[in-house]
Amino acid sequence: MSWIKRMLIGRPLKSAELGEQKINKTKALAILSSDALSSVAYGPEQILLVLVTVGAAAFWYSIPIGVGVLVLLTALILSYRQIIYAYPHGGGAYVVSKENLGKYPGLVAGGSLLVDYILTVAVSVSAGTDAITSAFPSLHAYSVGIAIIFVILITILNLRGLTESASILSYPVYLFVAALFILIGVGVYQIATGRFSPDLHASLGTEVAGISLFLLLRAFASGSSALTGVEAISNAIPNFKEPAPQNATRTLIAMGTLLAILFSGIVYLAYELGVSPKAEVTVVSQIAEEIFGRGFLYFFIQGTTALILILAANTGYSAFPLLAVNLAKDKFIPKMFTNRGDRLGYSNGIIFLGIFSIILILAFEGQTEHLIPLYAVGVFIPFTLSQTGMMMKWLRTRPSGWVIKLVINTTGAAISCIVSLMFFFTKFGQVWPVLIFLPGMVWIFYKIRKHYDTVGDQLRITSCEPVPPIEGNVVILPVAGITHVVEYSLNYAKSLSPHQIIAVYVPFEREEELAFQEKWQKWQPDVRLVTLLSPYRSIITPLSKFIDTVQRKASESHYQVTVIIPQFIPRKGWHNILHNQSSIFIRTHLLLSRNVIITTVPYRLKK
Amino acid sequence: MSWIKRMLIGRPLKSAELGEQKINKTKALAILSSDALSSVAYGPEQILLVLVTVGAAAFWYSIPIGVGVLVLLTALILSYRQIIYAYPHGGGAYVVSKENLGKYPGLVAGGSLLVDYILTVAVSVSAGTDAITSAFPSLHAYSVGIAIIFVILITILNLRGLTESASILSYPVYLFVAALFILIGVGVYQIATGRFSPDLHASLGTEVAGISLFLLLRAFASGSSALTGVEAISNAIPNFKEPAPQNATRTLIAMGTLLAILFSGIVYLAYELGVSPKAEVTVVSQIAEEIFGRGFLYFFIQGTTALILILAANTGYSAFPLLAVNLAKDKFIPKMFTNRGDRLGYSNGIIFLGIFSIILILAFEGQTEHLIPLYAVGVFIPFTLSQTGMMMKWLRTRPSGWVIKLVINTTGAAISCIVSLMFFFTKFGQVWPVLIFLPGMVWIFYKIRKHYDTVGDQLRITSCEPVPPIEGNVVILPVAGITHVVEYSLNYAKSLSPHQIIAVYVPFEREEELAFQEKWQKWQPDVRLVTLLSPYRSIITPLSKFIDTVQRKASESHYQVTVIIPQFIPRKGWHNILHNQSSIFIRTHLLLSRNVIITTVPYRLKK
Repeated sequence: MSWIKRMLIGRPLKSAELGEQKINKTKALAILSSDALSSVAYGPEQILLVLVTVGAAAFWYSIPIGVGVLVLLTALILSYRQIIYAYPHGGGAYVVSKENLGKYPGLVAGGSLLVDYILTVAVSVSAGTDAITSAFPSLHAYSVGIAIIFVILITILNLRGLTESASILSYPVYLFVAALFILIGVGVYQIATGRFSPDLHASLGTEVAGISLFLLLRAFASGSSALTGVEAISNAIPNFKEPAPQNATRTLIAMGTLLAILFSGIVYLAYELGVSPKAEVTVVSQIAEEIFGRGFLYFFIQGTTALILILAANTGYSAFPLLAVNLAKDKFIPKMFTNRGDRLGYSNGIIFLGIFSIILILAFEGQTEHLIPLYAVGVFIPFTLSQTGMMMKWLRTRPSGWVIKLVINTTGAAISCIVSLMFFFTKFGQVWPVLIFLPGMVWIFYKIRKHYDTVGDQLRITSCEPVPPIEGNVVILPVAGITHVVEYSLNYAKSLSPHQIIAVYVPFEREEELAFQEKWQKWQPDVRLVTLLSPYRSIITPLSKFIDTVQRKASESHYQVTVIIPQFIPRKGWHNILHNQSSIFIRTHLLLSRNVIITTVPYRLKK
Repeated sequence: MSWIKRMLIGRPLKSAELGEQKINKTKALAILSSDALSSVAYGPEQILLVLVTVGAAAFWYSIPIGVGVLVLLTALILSYRQIIYAYPHGGGAYVVSKENLGKYPGLVAGGSLLVDYILTVAVSVSAGTDAITSAFPSLHAYSVGIAIIFVILITILNLRGLTESASILSYPVYLFVAALFILIGVGVYQIATGRFSPDLHASLGTEVAGISLFLLLRAFASGSSALTGVEAISNAIPNFKEPAPQNATRTLIAMGTLLAILFSGIVYLAYELGVSPKAEVTVVSQIAEEIFGRGFLYFFIQGTTALILILAANTGYSAFPLLAVNLAKDKFIPKMFTNRGDRLGYSNGIIFLGIFSIILILAFEGQTEHLIPLYAVGVFIPFTLSQTGMMMKWLRTRPSGWVIKLVINTTGAAISCIVSLMFFFTKFGQVWPVLIFLPGMVWIFYKIRKHYDTVGDQLRITSCEPVPPIEGNVVILPVAGITHVVEYSLNYAKSLSPHQIIAVYVPFEREEELAFQEKWQKWQPDVRLVTLLSPYRSIITPLSKFIDTVQRKASESHYQVTVIIPQFIPRKGWHNILHNQSSIFIRTHLLLSRNVIITTVPYRLKK
């Protein structure tokens, strides 16, 4: 087993090697922005999908809506820039909301993001797999299996550790950005040189019958799903090389700029070329085909799009474990999420994320597209909460220049809040599960925290209840016969407490009882033997009753009762089924139901 | 949990109540012959299925073939009658072959029968379910589920105990016998009164083109599948009321007589009425329809046939556990098969049989008909071996009248051997798996026996190697912090061995190490603390190494090393995931890999 682990995730690293695992800006941009950048592949299309319901003439609205999304993007980037400086240890929406708005808003933000990262992985990998199976239709039947293999691969890469996965993952991201830059550049040049007829699209301001504010809001909400992922950097600040906040801010701004250029480029090209959304071919694919024809560049764009969609999942892998650490440090989720694995990553978070994404992919059989609105609303709720938290912070602390800061965060909060509400108003049928799982998660967080608190109170040495002293030991030794195992256990018992040993034998029949008593008398006349005739052939019931009796007497004189249980350790695992191993049942039963100490004396079979 | 068990299988019984569980002849006939009697429902049909391949004119051969089967039946009944008296403690083919032919023939017989009983259950229940779903075609889609429910019901009945299941199970068997008697009686009367034209069938001795000895042998082998189940009584003698051998013999003869009458009646009626086998309607069903029309008696026969087919499974449940006990007593299969359950049945055998039959039904999706030849050959191999064993016994011991006995068993052995060989020659495609699983099972039996033998040698107190004395104890206490749990465990350690306690702390970082040493020094200055800095964040590796060091020193002075491991016992099961519970991992690892004694100190959380 252990060599498999080595091969997959590499040699263990020392805690002191942690610094070497930190990443620079170029790699960070690749790792943390693949989610945000990849959404360019579907964001503009989401807008057109809403507008097409009233007709192609309405497509010009994508330009003002696109501008709206850019405004929202700017507000978010500026807001998150302020968050990074204010909270250089990361934690993003959870920490910000918790500190400024209180525990429950923090938990809502944290729970929302935890689920969201799982959705990110499932949705992105499924979408990437769809892109591949569209190219190779013969693979279509295996798409669930392919998606799961991708999740496993990404999980392993992340268990190997951050820098190594970053090296592998940065190429596709930069290739995707380069591909889209070429597409947009060539496209704009062709438009400028008049290759495309202006009749392909309705001009801006054309009146459209049937357009409504509701529809435009819905299109805007859909378009803003392109902004999911912009919060990832603020969660991952501790992964940056020092000075972390400066590096994180620069990465954030670079990402925002790239996202803005790519998003507006695609929206603009789609408008100019009059692209209409189709079921089988994506908008980006149509644009690329119009501009390049079905040549090398077309397939290059399709390929890098598929890759970046799959890698977008990696953003979830960077952010989820860090958020989980923050929640676990506050004792809202199990402590195990704070353990660093062999390669210094928070392995439990990584594995948990992988398993749950696979479950989601299996549950939806790879058809996770209709999870996109759920996923988007799960992002905008924490956006809203964290921006609101920042507003409170500025109002409370009033540092120099707080008015500008307040204005930025207020704008961010207001727009995020509106987008969230728009999702509820315009897509309730798809986002309602949020209303169930968010309260559910907060309740679970609360129960876990309460448990840890009560346990902590009980363990604290300063608490009033003193541990009772132990004056001596009574040793109970259940025996099944007269064998080497019993002899060995008896020797051990004698070394502990020579005068307080009770051997217990549980016969099923009277003759057996008498015969054993006689044999014992000859073999160990000095050790007291108690036989408990068990007509119902149960060993545990009479033994437990006897232990209760002994314990009652022992506790009067502050004696501790220890039960010695011999256990066979066969040389091969399968041999275990050849031995009744009732010792294991007895041990578990007594441990759970009686207040006794259980000593396991292993008896190793040599052959 | 325990009340569910009570409800399903009843209150536990005392060992002394075993006598009351023994069964009388009437019930025994019902329980132990349902397998044999039910095969009347398909045995004659199997003959016709072979003959129909050369044409309806060949059907008259079913009469001489039927006579052949009756001769075989007589030989088997007489042979088994002798076995019952010679081996009144049961065990049938396994015991007889083992004692007279040696270990390996015995194991071949035993292994063959073990598998066969599993096949009995799967095949019979599937066939019975088919009969039901033929009557109610809307249930057809659920036939696998229905079959599994029947297996579970029969398993529960058998776990409840023998007499109670016998009471429930005897009615359908007697109803089936009564129904067939009525059918045969009315049929013979109608033939005698000339209701059916003699042209319906070719007369005996008609020449048939294409008939061959091979075909006739094949038909005979197929027909002898009706004799599966006759060995059941000889395996189950210990279940009979005293005098068991007499009662068993009378039951055996009663069963043989019934089987002979029913089998020859059906063969005769099928011949007289000229019934030809059809895919959808069974031969018995065709006969019943001819004689009664589709009235009450027709459905009565169909219904009791379905019931007895399902109950035939019960024969497997009576015989399998007893055979398993015999094998387990000889240490060829795990000892657990000798444990009596709450209701004094050998529950492990019953449960094992139920599980494996369900697996077979699932694996073949309820289509177990083509397992019939495999099942038949699996019966005739032990038949042959046990009869051969009896031959050897008579030749060796030569009691009074041994020549007649020898002749009877020699005839039985010869016919059984011929039938077995015929299966291999004429149906090799269906029976070849026997050649794989029989050697496989014998090999497993051999390995298990060898393991028990070596273990027994090691445990025997008379063996040369003396248990080394224990001069004193070194107690190692891994600590994770300064808490009540540690305090409590430390108190216990002090009560065992006040001067040889080593507390071990495994810090991941240098600062942590220093801080803990300081705290410990203040808290427990008298207890030696060892800190094991673990840069790779593993607890088990440094701890194991340290234990090795301590153990090396301790063993020089015959000291025993005990590791005390505190374990949280939370009040609710799910709380376990909130605690790292590394203690459980450490315990298991040390127990399996180091020669130390592990003491678990439970710390029960009160809230």
